[in-house]
Amino acid sequence: MAEAFHFRIDATDGLARTGIIETTRGTIRTPAFMPVGTGGTVKALLPDMVRATGADIVLGNTYHLMLRPGAERVAALGGLHSFMNWPQPILTDSGGYQVMSLSGLRKITEDGVTFQSHIDGASHALSPERAVDIQRLLDADISMVLDECTPFPATPDEAERSMLRSMRWAERSKAAFVARPGKALFGIVQGSVYPKLRAQSAATLIARGFDGYAIGGLAVGEGQAEMFKTLDATLPHLLLDKPRYLMGVGKPDDIVGAVLRGVDMFDCVLPTRSGRNGQAFTWRGTVNLRNARHARDFRPLDAESSCPASRDYSRAYLHHLVKSNEILGSILLSWHNVAFYQELVGELRAAIAQKRADAFAVEFRRRQTEGDIPPLGGTAADGEE
Amino acid sequence: MAEAFHFRIDATDGLARTGIIETTRGTIRTPAFMPVGTGGTVKALLPDMVRATGADIVLGNTYHLMLRPGAERVAALGGLHSFMNWPQPILTDSGGYQVMSLSGLRKITEDGVTFQSHIDGASHALSPERAVDIQRLLDADISMVLDECTPFPATPDEAERSMLRSMRWAERSKAAFVARPGKALFGIVQGSVYPKLRAQSAATLIARGFDGYAIGGLAVGEGQAEMFKTLDATLPHLLLDKPRYLMGVGKPDDIVGAVLRGVDMFDCVLPTRSGRNGQAFTWRGTVNLRNARHARDFRPLDAESSCPASRDYSRAYLHHLVKSNEILGSILLSWHNVAFYQELVGELRAAIAQKRADAFAVEFRRRQTEGDIPPLGGTAADGEE
Repeated sequence: MAEAFHFRIDATDGLARTGIIETTRGTIRTPAFMPVGTGGTVKALLPDMVRATGADIVLGNTYHLMLRPGAERVAALGGLHSFMNWPQPILTDSGGYQVMSLSGLRKITEDGVTFQSHIDGASHALSPERAVDIQRLLDADISMVLDECTPFPATPDEAERSMLRSMRWAERSKAAFVARPGKALFGIVQGSVYPKLRAQSAATLIARGFDGYAIGGLAVGEGQAEMFKTLDATLPHLLLDKPRYLMGVGKPDDIVGAVLRGVDMFDCVLPTRSGRNGQAFTWRGTVNLRNARHARDFRPLDAESSCPASRDYSRAYLHHLVKSNEILGSILLSWHNVAFYQELVGELRAAIAQKRADAFAVEFRRRQTEGDIPPLGGTAADGEE
Repeated sequence: MAEAFHFRIDATDGLARTGIIETTRGTIRTPAFMPVGTGGTVKALLPDMVRATGADIVLGNTYHLMLRPGAERVAALGGLHSFMNWPQPILTDSGGYQVMSLSGLRKITEDGVTFQSHIDGASHALSPERAVDIQRLLDADISMVLDECTPFPATPDEAERSMLRSMRWAERSKAAFVARPGKALFGIVQGSVYPKLRAQSAATLIARGFDGYAIGGLAVGEGQAEMFKTLDATLPHLLLDKPRYLMGVGKPDDIVGAVLRGVDMFDCVLPTRSGRNGQAFTWRGTVNLRNARHARDFRPLDAESSCPASRDYSRAYLHHLVKSNEILGSILLSWHNVAFYQELVGELRAAIAQKRADAFAVEFRRRQTEGDIPPLGGTAADGEE
């Protein structure tokens, strides 16, 4: 393990890059997908199962953890790694996004944001300084600056005002960040879908200097085309030798497109949330296990996968578990989905190293649109249609 | 693996016995605790996790599986072992108990019982012949005869009428059972709390001849003292060289008492159901993880356990998961509880082999009443009380 936070690019292919981020808690292979461990747990999965999928790092949510069990308590218990039994690297967000999307009665001022907990209605405050301190208490390997999540759509004026506030908050976050060996602080580029604002935001952050740069304020309803356009306008303004993290993204196809554009890191709740809803991501697109076509299908989701959930259980069994609302259905499909996302970034890393990233993307999109394997023939006489 | 169903007693201590049941799918160490895999899943646990606790056999519920996904469908998919990815032995109950406790609008006749599914209200019928056939379709290693679950309390007349019907159904179940290598059929002794009826039931079943004998109709509200009294009155009438199975029992202390009296097999939903409700069984009694005393407790449930759930996660973390209704809380506590039950029967087997079963039971009861480890001293300033 490294003694300092370090990013190294091992190969490039067009704009895409593959390499490693070294931290004191382990090495993160990039492009990396970070499963989301919202409230101290990647939902429905044991840490060992997450690790077995090939995940090198998970994400923890400052908003959820500050409300329950509380940052000071996590610190007293030895930090988030020990608390959730995940010794590998952890990135924490700053809480800003969830404050906007989950909490009640928010009030944003230049100082920060006050809000009511979605759990018990209690009042809480988050400032750039407090957000950074919470992440220190959690012992995050990678911390994020507090930003204001610009609503979408926003007028250029609204987007500029919001971005400028985020830049002031980034400055304060950086000032509050206590440098510790191996621990990193990432800035977050804002500016909605406006290239000029994105460029200005990137320049501001780079002038201040961060260990990595995130692109925030996307995947908020703008659609994939607009998101890719914004990435195309933003990424050239970021440093080549620092990690780039596209926050909250996304669907498998979003990730492929963003990696081709030069993004190194991703996080998203989709694999676990969809897993709890009976949906599986596969190389041939999404599969809804609730659908009756699976009721008698003895085939697994993916016989070639190294994940037991994908390989060792029939679609008929998964269908049965989902229809019966069995916890094991959530477990197996979350596990399968997280494993699929890890396979996807693993294949992307290999394709970049072998200079065939574009071909991989073309073939990936072809297979995604091809659809699921054909249903088994014949009709059975045992009832369910 | 054996080619035939076989029971061998290796050691006795007083009335208690330890040995093995050999089946074509593996060896079952007795006394054995069978985790309940209601609808084709031991709730909230992967089969590998169940196996890792030391469970040699699980129970499947005919009632649940006949309703969903249906016995014929399980058969078409290769049987219950393949369906739920559990290659070790499976015992299935006959469905009688759940028909009484879960279904709507029941009608019992001499032929059998018709009832409405608790899932969709559809009408179903269960007879001794159909119950045995369903269990054959599921490919159970040990099948149970259909019995009528005598309500408690019952007058001697009611209990006798009910027991005699169960005996006629046992006869029909046996006649319907297709002998297959390694597959067993157990009879079920009924007779409520009346020694004379229990003796008569046992004699009737033994005269017909079964591979093992279950004691049914207990743990239905009669209390531990009455249950033990009934066991004392029943077990002497059973054959020494056949397995004895106390159905649906029970709490750890029930199991210890029943093993001392000569019972070999148990099943109960308590470890998994309690696990989903935030309750842990331990050597020092039950522990409610919802209690705030655990909120800052960095200690695991049992540092000496070989189960990761018991050993590698703090009480504070489990408390957090339970309070947050996280699926992982159900997973970890179900795992811990099933592991504890397996540790318990493992210790009982060792104690019997070493002729110290009584001393073990005394010490077990002392530790159970001793209560949980003392809370951590001091008060923290972080809020939760």
